[in-house]
Parts: sequence; C-alpha cells; structure tokens
Amino acid sequence: MKIQIQPVGRISNKGESTIIEIYPEYSKALLGLEAFSHIMVFCWFHKNDRPEKRKTLQVHPMKNKNKPRTGVFATRSPQRPNLIAIFMCVLKEIRENRISVEKIDAFDGTPVIDIKPYIPHNDSVPNARIPKWVKEGE
Amino acid sequence: MKIQIQPVGRISNKGESTIIEIYPEYSKALLGLEAFSHIMVFCWFHKNDRPEKRKTLQVHPMKNKNKPRTGVFATRSPQRPNLIAIFMCVLKEIRENRISVEKIDAFDGTPVIDIKPYIPHNDSVPNARIPKWVKEGE
Repeated sequence: MKIQIQPVGRISNKGESTIIEIYPEYSKALLGLEAFSHIMVFCWFHKNDRPEKRKTLQVHPMKNKNKPRTGVFATRSPQRPNLIAIFMCVLKEIRENRISVEKIDAFDGTPVIDIKPYIPHNDSVPNARIPKWVKEGE
Repeated sequence: MKIQIQPVGRISNKGESTIIEIYPEYSKALLGLEAFSHIMVFCWFHKNDRPEKRKTLQVHPMKNKNKPRTGVFATRSPQRPNLIAIFMCVLKEIRENRISVEKIDAFDGTPVIDIKPYIPHNDSVPNARIPKWVKEGE
C-alpha cells in the first residue's frame, strides 16, 4: 500500500517571524481557524527524504552520544520512516492564505502537509511522564 | 512535488482494547518508547482516500448542521486534503511489536504512519483557546 501526500503549503521562515503560506487552492480550508489560539502544523522533513534517512530506526537523541540509543518512534528525530514533523504553535494572525505563528524551528521552504486546531481536552496532557534523557528541545 | 508514505503498522481494534501492531521491519524503532506514559499515534483515514473526500475543504463539524460551516484545517474532520489523523494515547504496554493503548476511535485495520512520544513541555497547552462550537469529541 502506497499513500500519496500533496503539500498544502510551505513554511516561510525569515528572521524572527514564521509565516505558513497555504497554497491558494486550499485557502478555503482555513475558514474559522483564527478562533483558535494554538494550532498543530504538520510538515515534511523534506531534506531527509532519502532512502538511508528513512531507513534509520535508532538514534542518539539530538546526536548526543551521552543520551541512550533510542528508537526513532520514541524521539522527535527528523530521521524516521515517514518524515512527519509536528509543531504546536501560537497562532498570531491570518491574512488570506498566510498564517503568522510564533517562530517555528524549521527550514525555510519546508512543505506543510496539514493544519489542525489544538483542542486542550483532547490534546493537552500536562502530567505525561517522560524519561530522564528528555530535555527541552527534544 | 509528491510525497510517498509507507504504513509502519496498523490498528487492531477489537472490543474494548486497541493494539497498534508495528510491522516487524520497524520494531527496532520502538526501543525506549515504554518510558513514556503517553504517545502520539499518526494514522491515515484510508476509507476516505478518494479524490472527492480529499477535495473537501469545508464541513459542518461532526456533520452537525447546527455547527458553523468550517474549513477542514479548523476541524479534526476525516475529510481533508491529506488524510492524517492524530491520537494522543495512554500507553499501557509494549510486547515486541505490539503496543497496547487505551481505546482509540479508529476502524480496525487503519494504517499507522508514525508514532511519537508525548512531551508535555512541547505538546501540552492546557489553556489554549477554542471557539464555542467545539465540544468533547471534536
């Protein structure tokens, strides 16, 4: 089974601001999004879309050898079988097909593949347990 | 630009339990996942993988005409350009390539496309603002 994804936009990351540019043919899908304070932005780690990166199943998180070798499904590594990234973002403003958000750590030009609203009663788990090696940034 | 996704597993949803069956060739990617209490499970709404479903840009959430017509990027609708689903789950147990989680509302056989750990300092926004039409379940 092969699944095909079509980018719906791209990240414009210049200076301190991040704009999510939704392609005009998808702009109707933004109706009502500005009522949410936070959104989930799904991207594709396009620079890693090479067979050897997608075959990587274990890494030292953040390339730090002091962190234990870990399965990629237990990390946010940009090397993984499907190169999906997720960012929880503060939504600042929407003008036509351009969504301003607080800074995202992604390359300029990164393909955007989905946007979803952040709904705290589904998505927020403040007390979720994490292992010791996880620090801010992973 | 076309992006190809390969399923890494499937949802086994029988009775009250949900098992995520990771395909054996990806089982090494699970190393260390059991240290997290919660995981994000990314799926593909495969039953909607038809052009007309993927062209849907606005819906009445939960097919409820009393809710305002809304862009799919402002809903969790299973009709959207890229049929990505995300579930925040309580991880119960991992045995080899089988992850037991608390019940997920997904069809038996749904393709799983990624697993990520839930990291509260990145992912939890307890006070995110939502519009009035959003209720439990959307």
